[in-house]
Amino acid sequence: MLRRVIPNILAERYASSEIQSIWSAEGRIILEREFWIAVMKAQRDLGLDIPAEAIAAYEKVKDQVDTRSIMERERVTRHDVKARIEEFNGLAGHEQVHKGMTSRDLTENVEQLQVYKSLLVIRDKSVAALARLAQRAKQWDELVLTARTHNVAAQPTTFGKRVAMFGEELASSFEALESHIASYAVRGLKGAVGTQMDQLSLFEGDASKVAKLESQVVAHLGMPAVWKNVGQVYPRSLDFRSISVLVDLCSGPSSFCRTLRLMAGHETASEGFAPGQTGSSAMPHKMNSRSCERVNGFHAILKGHLAMASALAGDQWNEGDVSCSVVRRVMLPDAFFAIDGMFETFLTILDQMDAYPAVIAAETAHYLPFLMTTTIMMEAVKAGVGRETAHKAIKEHALATVADLRNGTIDRNNLIERLAGDSRIGLQRATLDAILAQGDRESGAAKSQVAAFATAVEKITKAHPKAAGYKPGSIL
Amino acid sequence: MLRRVIPNILAERYASSEIQSIWSAEGRIILEREFWIAVMKAQRDLGLDIPAEAIAAYEKVKDQVDTRSIMERERVTRHDVKARIEEFNGLAGHEQVHKGMTSRDLTENVEQLQVYKSLLVIRDKSVAALARLAQRAKQWDELVLTARTHNVAAQPTTFGKRVAMFGEELASSFEALESHIASYAVRGLKGAVGTQMDQLSLFEGDASKVAKLESQVVAHLGMPAVWKNVGQVYPRSLDFRSISVLVDLCSGPSSFCRTLRLMAGHETASEGFAPGQTGSSAMPHKMNSRSCERVNGFHAILKGHLAMASALAGDQWNEGDVSCSVVRRVMLPDAFFAIDGMFETFLTILDQMDAYPAVIAAETAHYLPFLMTTTIMMEAVKAGVGRETAHKAIKEHALATVADLRNGTIDRNNLIERLAGDSRIGLQRATLDAILAQGDRESGAAKSQVAAFATAVEKITKAHPKAAGYKPGSIL
Amino acid sequence: MLRRVIPNILAERYASSEIQSIWSAEGRIILEREFWIAVMKAQRDLGLDIPAEAIAAYEKVKDQVDTRSIMERERVTRHDVKARIEEFNGLAGHEQVHKGMTSRDLTENVEQLQVYKSLLVIRDKSVAALARLAQRAKQWDELVLTARTHNVAAQPTTFGKRVAMFGEELASSFEALESHIASYAVRGLKGAVGTQMDQLSLFEGDASKVAKLESQVVAHLGMPAVWKNVGQVYPRSLDFRSISVLVDLCSGPSSFCRTLRLMAGHETASEGFAPGQTGSSAMPHKMNSRSCERVNGFHAILKGHLAMASALAGDQWNEGDVSCSVVRRVMLPDAFFAIDGMFETFLTILDQMDAYPAVIAAETAHYLPFLMTTTIMMEAVKAGVGRETAHKAIKEHALATVADLRNGTIDRNNLIERLAGDSRIGLQRATLDAILAQGDRESGAAKSQVAAFATAVEKITKAHPKAAGYKPGSIL
Amino acid sequence: MLRRVIPNILAERYASSEIQSIWSAEGRIILEREFWIAVMKAQRDLGLDIPAEAIAAYEKVKDQVDTRSIMERERVTRHDVKARIEEFNGLAGHEQVHKGMTSRDLTENVEQLQVYKSLLVIRDKSVAALARLAQRAKQWDELVLTARTHNVAAQPTTFGKRVAMFGEELASSFEALESHIASYAVRGLKGAVGTQMDQLSLFEGDASKVAKLESQVVAHLGMPAVWKNVGQVYPRSLDFRSISVLVDLCSGPSSFCRTLRLMAGHETASEGFAPGQTGSSAMPHKMNSRSCERVNGFHAILKGHLAMASALAGDQWNEGDVSCSVVRRVMLPDAFFAIDGMFETFLTILDQMDAYPAVIAAETAHYLPFLMTTTIMMEAVKAGVGRETAHKAIKEHALATVADLRNGTIDRNNLIERLAGDSRIGLQRATLDAILAQGDRESGAAKSQVAAFATAVEKITKAHPKAAGYKPGSIL
Repeated sequence: MLRRVIPNILAERYASSEIQSIWSAEGRIILEREFWIAVMKAQRDLGLDIPAEAIAAYEKVKDQVDTRSIMERERVTRHDVKARIEEFNGLAGHEQVHKGMTSRDLTENVEQLQVYKSLLVIRDKSVAALARLAQRAKQWDELVLTARTHNVAAQPTTFGKRVAMFGEELASSFEALESHIASYAVRGLKGAVGTQMDQLSLFEGDASKVAKLESQVVAHLGMPAVWKNVGQVYPRSLDFRSISVLVDLCSGPSSFCRTLRLMAGHETASEGFAPGQTGSSAMPHKMNSRSCERVNGFHAILKGHLAMASALAGDQWNEGDVSCSVVRRVMLPDAFFAIDGMFETFLTILDQMDAYPAVIAAETAHYLPFLMTTTIMMEAVKAGVGRETAHKAIKEHALATVADLRNGTIDRNNLIERLAGDSRIGLQRATLDAILAQGDRESGAAKSQVAAFATAVEKITKAHPKAAGYKPGSIL
Repeated sequence: MLRRVIPNILAERYASSEIQSIWSAEGRIILEREFWIAVMKAQRDLGLDIPAEAIAAYEKVKDQVDTRSIMERERVTRHDVKARIEEFNGLAGHEQVHKGMTSRDLTENVEQLQVYKSLLVIRDKSVAALARLAQRAKQWDELVLTARTHNVAAQPTTFGKRVAMFGEELASSFEALESHIASYAVRGLKGAVGTQMDQLSLFEGDASKVAKLESQVVAHLGMPAVWKNVGQVYPRSLDFRSISVLVDLCSGPSSFCRTLRLMAGHETASEGFAPGQTGSSAMPHKMNSRSCERVNGFHAILKGHLAMASALAGDQWNEGDVSCSVVRRVMLPDAFFAIDGMFETFLTILDQMDAYPAVIAAETAHYLPFLMTTTIMMEAVKAGVGRETAHKAIKEHALATVADLRNGTIDRNNLIERLAGDSRIGLQRATLDAILAQGDRESGAAKSQVAAFATAVEKITKAHPKAAGYKPGSIL
Repeated sequence: MLRRVIPNILAERYASSEIQSIWSAEGRIILEREFWIAVMKAQRDLGLDIPAEAIAAYEKVKDQVDTRSIMERERVTRHDVKARIEEFNGLAGHEQVHKGMTSRDLTENVEQLQVYKSLLVIRDKSVAALARLAQRAKQWDELVLTARTHNVAAQPTTFGKRVAMFGEELASSFEALESHIASYAVRGLKGAVGTQMDQLSLFEGDASKVAKLESQVVAHLGMPAVWKNVGQVYPRSLDFRSISVLVDLCSGPSSFCRTLRLMAGHETASEGFAPGQTGSSAMPHKMNSRSCERVNGFHAILKGHLAMASALAGDQWNEGDVSCSVVRRVMLPDAFFAIDGMFETFLTILDQMDAYPAVIAAETAHYLPFLMTTTIMMEAVKAGVGRETAHKAIKEHALATVADLRNGTIDRNNLIERLAGDSRIGLQRATLDAILAQGDRESGAAKSQVAAFATAVEKITKAHPKAAGYKPGSIL
Repeated sequence: MLRRVIPNILAERYASSEIQSIWSAEGRIILEREFWIAVMKAQRDLGLDIPAEAIAAYEKVKDQVDTRSIMERERVTRHDVKARIEEFNGLAGHEQVHKGMTSRDLTENVEQLQVYKSLLVIRDKSVAALARLAQRAKQWDELVLTARTHNVAAQPTTFGKRVAMFGEELASSFEALESHIASYAVRGLKGAVGTQMDQLSLFEGDASKVAKLESQVVAHLGMPAVWKNVGQVYPRSLDFRSISVLVDLCSGPSSFCRTLRLMAGHETASEGFAPGQTGSSAMPHKMNSRSCERVNGFHAILKGHLAMASALAGDQWNEGDVSCSVVRRVMLPDAFFAIDGMFETFLTILDQMDAYPAVIAAETAHYLPFLMTTTIMMEAVKAGVGRETAHKAIKEHALATVADLRNGTIDRNNLIERLAGDSRIGLQRATLDAILAQGDRESGAAKSQVAAFATAVEKITKAHPKAAGYKPGSIL
């Protein structure tokens, strides 16, 4: 039986090293040790008898992480935190860490720190995506395109507007992310059941010292808020909210990519090729939307994590237990690996994608007479025809034209000629031709809408200039 | 084959009439007609040729809702909006509604109005729940209770603190709800593919008139924001966000109720009985936690709606289609019926629940020696014993005592005597007794935590005084 | 505040009357009463003192269903079954029903009967769908079509094969459904906690009588199996399995419809129009894939029900409770309404859909040189060229041709000419032309695969001849 | 920034090496190479010009797996299969693999083989769990226990029956698994779009040779069935069905563990301790249900994978693409790691768990008078009292007794005395005492139900004797 380390596939194949370092076993153990040291320092400051040289000894060894040794200890104790305490004590030659603390005083705070740091990384990548979306929207804000509803030609729009449409969705999710970050609360040092009894006991019942200890430790963590009333754990609806925000953030990109896959089918646009990339091994000409498909795949994965998170929220028994433990070990890092991989992929798409104006123009020419029927109906109404009457007449001719095109009876869309010949509609051929000519140039408020989106994004990128310039790593 | 109208079970059995009226077919049709009228008035104000008497005629008949007649029209047209236009035109004797509008100009805005109104109702019920939670937390803020982790006795807390713990979770979800409401954006009058082309055509390309028309119509709706860049539909991640907030809101109550079900098993508390209520028909003595179980049931339902919402978000093709239609017809009203039924049930539980101090006290007496082992260990550490050494000794005695109680060897918890006899721990019997006596009175920072929760809730209830006083209807 | 009965939208708009009648309040109450009567008869047969005239009195009134009266009783008792017992007793003037029974002895069995009857209805509609799929697959088994992978032209297939591909998926799900139906087990008369204690007490401890009572009652229900070891409830994983089978059944149709929506975008096929149907009110020419989109919508709904079911399964506390109650009241009928509505819609699509051979042929002509590159590479390999060498050369020309078409440099696919000119590939122009000509006629094993599918379906339809001929009702 | 390989946490911490070896990168690559070799051999047998020494060269190097080198190739090609072809060709010094094959001809079949092998492993562990459940059920088949509904004492049962109840649920899921395994179909060698065109081309259109090739290759894989009509991929509803069966299998164990967590709260049973295990570091006496909580955690994880699977099923576009790729890379191995970890944990619980008869007996004594009220009511009914009358009287006394116990007014359950004094019930004290005495011994049909379960399991273990004896590895 063959057996080597099985890597986390999301981390290895898709996530950036920034997110990986937050969630690696080594990274986490160092965060924990720094947290223990922060607690010891605060406890010492507040009068506990913790020798300075002990703290120094811990600080000296804090980066010596031997996961194998810890795992061996855990196989004996069947308790992960106990194993990590013993390891750290063993390395430092002292028994001073974890005083007045319960396991969750350590793990909850450190895991929340991992979540919080990850949220900041994702915020920055959201900014980078918004910046690119605004840029692409402006680049194509005059490229008239056949908008589709029900996947069928409907009315003119511009490709820029289509980009801005999905961009504004992401901007809205971004706002939700910002609000989540701004109110994110950490559990703090609350003891075994949330009453701070053990720290109070350590400090002889001095509540003000315990309060100071907690503030100092929360300051070390750097998060914006702290829970007051918790049990052994912080409420799992907070995890649910974090994952939910990630699913939300994925929606705009996911719809964008689904639409780009559709456009690739019509050859009006594509996600492009990176240098050296090849199509399917059997069909070399194919420019497959592999990255777009992958973005949609990440979305599916995150919906799975959301199901996990929603199984935990609202299922707290009394002051808590570890039924959430294995779930959070999987869900929290994987969700951030997935959303990070999503943004790396999406940013790459935004950088490499291509539009094909010649094909777009051919499509528009084919559909334009149909696309303008709404406008024609409006003109007919303005000219005094009843709305339902106009609708009926136009519909007859439109359906007949469609049928003839599909049967091969005609090979050119001649709807305008048919409408000009129908007195029920009451519009001259010249008027109809003018509408058509106008349609080819106009796309309603599309351009000003794009400009509004670009302005909104500018505000965001100004607030996060470094993030806006982020360049994705090379993706597989 | 027997066949009558099958009612919506969530609406009929659980939801309040306030929410029902928002989502009833009749209520919705009237909202639509009021919306059409608002559009016509604005169009007329801005110069369109819409006779005042036509508007008056529509206003006169707007409350005449005949769903059967509309359904018959729909069976012919296979288009629901078309059927409703024809019905309204038929009643009024005019053909003036829906000018320059596409179906989604009507339905998106009206459905968002339903969502928004429902969010406000739910906000008020959240406030009512928070007010009661604060009240219950304060009522029991000195009732010492055996806190449990892993469902096993852990350390003293108070029942008030336990209530505040779940209360603070709800308060945190409430904050997320407020933030969602404050940024909720409506689609507006954007036309068939989002470019406002038809309204622009109606107003001869005058963009400022179209902008004014939209603001006037959005003002009629009364929502805080409006999308700029949309297609045929507003992004479905907004629906996802709404449902997600509802699931979030359900988490605190759901954990509260799960815990009350556990307490009922120990007879330390119960959800109480309403007058006339009976237990299981076969076992009349039983005080079953039916309402708490129902709250947990509503949570499961909402997680189902979340799965529906997450299937829609990120799945927009081009400018949109109706693959979301049947889903939203089910998910949107049902999610609000469920959360409303949840709050009606939860408020009833909060009003009728009972604690049993005698049983609680007996439980505490039984577990106290175990509960104080952490404190005893702290004291031993303060007295100079190594943490791991103390832990080992206490553990031996604790496990032996547990074993003897389970075997029936002893019938009274005699851990203190055992500890006093062990020199490794280094604490006198008197010290141990004092710790025990203290434990019976103290519960760490529990009381001040409750007070902090009550203060936080007070701020909320002051901002929504009427909501705080809401009384739930009678539940089944 | 406006308030009338809010109908179940899935039942009212989409489900057939057959499924509605199974799940209507009235239908269910009659099933319950018939069940009570069956129990009384069996109890009487086995020696209990139940007067024949009492049974007769119950039988006489069993169809008198007054839901309003029952609801009023429930508002007093806060117990739905108790209310229905009182109502039935009141109507009959006796107190003989429900002897030795607990609420769940009634409700579990009756609800399982509703599920089982519904599964049979859905089985029949699956057969009808398979019959039509086989018919459509054969109809188009020689209509060569450009198969797409990554939504991009890949290789020739036939439209018939594409239909058979999704058809075989449904056939596989159908097999899973059949297996589920064949092993579906009912809870039986097991008493309050599953030990049959009360029936044993009624029959003075005579276990064989209790066993006979149960078999007689199960025979009345007509289900294939019965649980031996249950608590108050049957395991909710059985509900999960039922819903899961429905989601499974939805997958083939859902992929079929998603693909038909894609084809509609290329105008190679459409779902067709029913007489009187209209397109979007603003764009009358549009033949929107509304029904296909709806099928995808039903799939999303069912995934929500699956989330509900999976929240219940594995969450049984001891011998059970009613935390599942409100969930099952929603999920079970709604899931069957949704899958039934799905099949009604899907059958309609299969009946009305259209292929457009002229458009399909034009598409094939455009892509054929690309589609044949795999075959060309095979031929080159057979002619002695290395696979990777051939791949590289063909890829160069294919990509260049694509680029020129997109730039508008060429307006006709001239890949064959380019390949003929490249010595690395080693194939003559004549050979290449022959491959192309062959490609236009051939589609590999597609035709024989369709035949295999048709044969497999024939076996199924022969086993269910009536079901195969089912015609859907008129859909909205 | 710290960065090392991030392991798959489910594999590393929870899954057995048997499952790990199936899903490791190295294991998979060897399966792929063996598959390629099987194809080459079959192709050579059927007349293709593949030199025997080339096949020998491939066989010689097939176990030389260098994932780093493959990953480097993939960074260039951006195509994982191409990278693996190049690596294998490079090692062997030939270009003979993958003839007439498309990527999915390789990956689909190999991934299905991984799924299928994993299903067999899980089947065996299910058998092992059933064997232990039957053994535990028989061990405790006379240990009378207070059954609970709504988490409140209801009626006597036995602990053995409670175990059998969840055991029978698992047996039912096991049947579903067996049925899934028996019908599991592999995709086979179908080519780029499912028409076998390239293999047909290789064999000069000889369909019988292509059929033989496929059967030979499917025989190599060893799976029971093969799809006829597929596209590039096999239908993703098959993956959905696999994951769904895993969630199903998890339900019985999950409910068992949830109930054991409840029992631990009452100290009637516990999951036990392994040698060396410690409780919470701060509270050493605690015997926490960590493993049971973990089983519930695995269930939550699998529900997440189910959500992923249900996002893929029904979302096939045309003949397929890779939007499922990243999802399946995560979901398939992780789901099997999770279910495997679940069974390892559950088997350990079944081996180490303990019941505490003394505590169970004390609980029964306390509740017995309540538990027997149904029987008392039955007796009263048999003695001629109306059911509703008896119910009312018994209820009054039961509620009063409950109230007095909760208030501390009485400290012993005196319900029997109260009932004896009430003429409405019409039963003598002696009769009531006899009922009580009987209740302490009897538990209805519980014992025979357990026997029936044991018999059913015996049939299964006889069919899989080796599996039944499986011992779990040591868990964390």
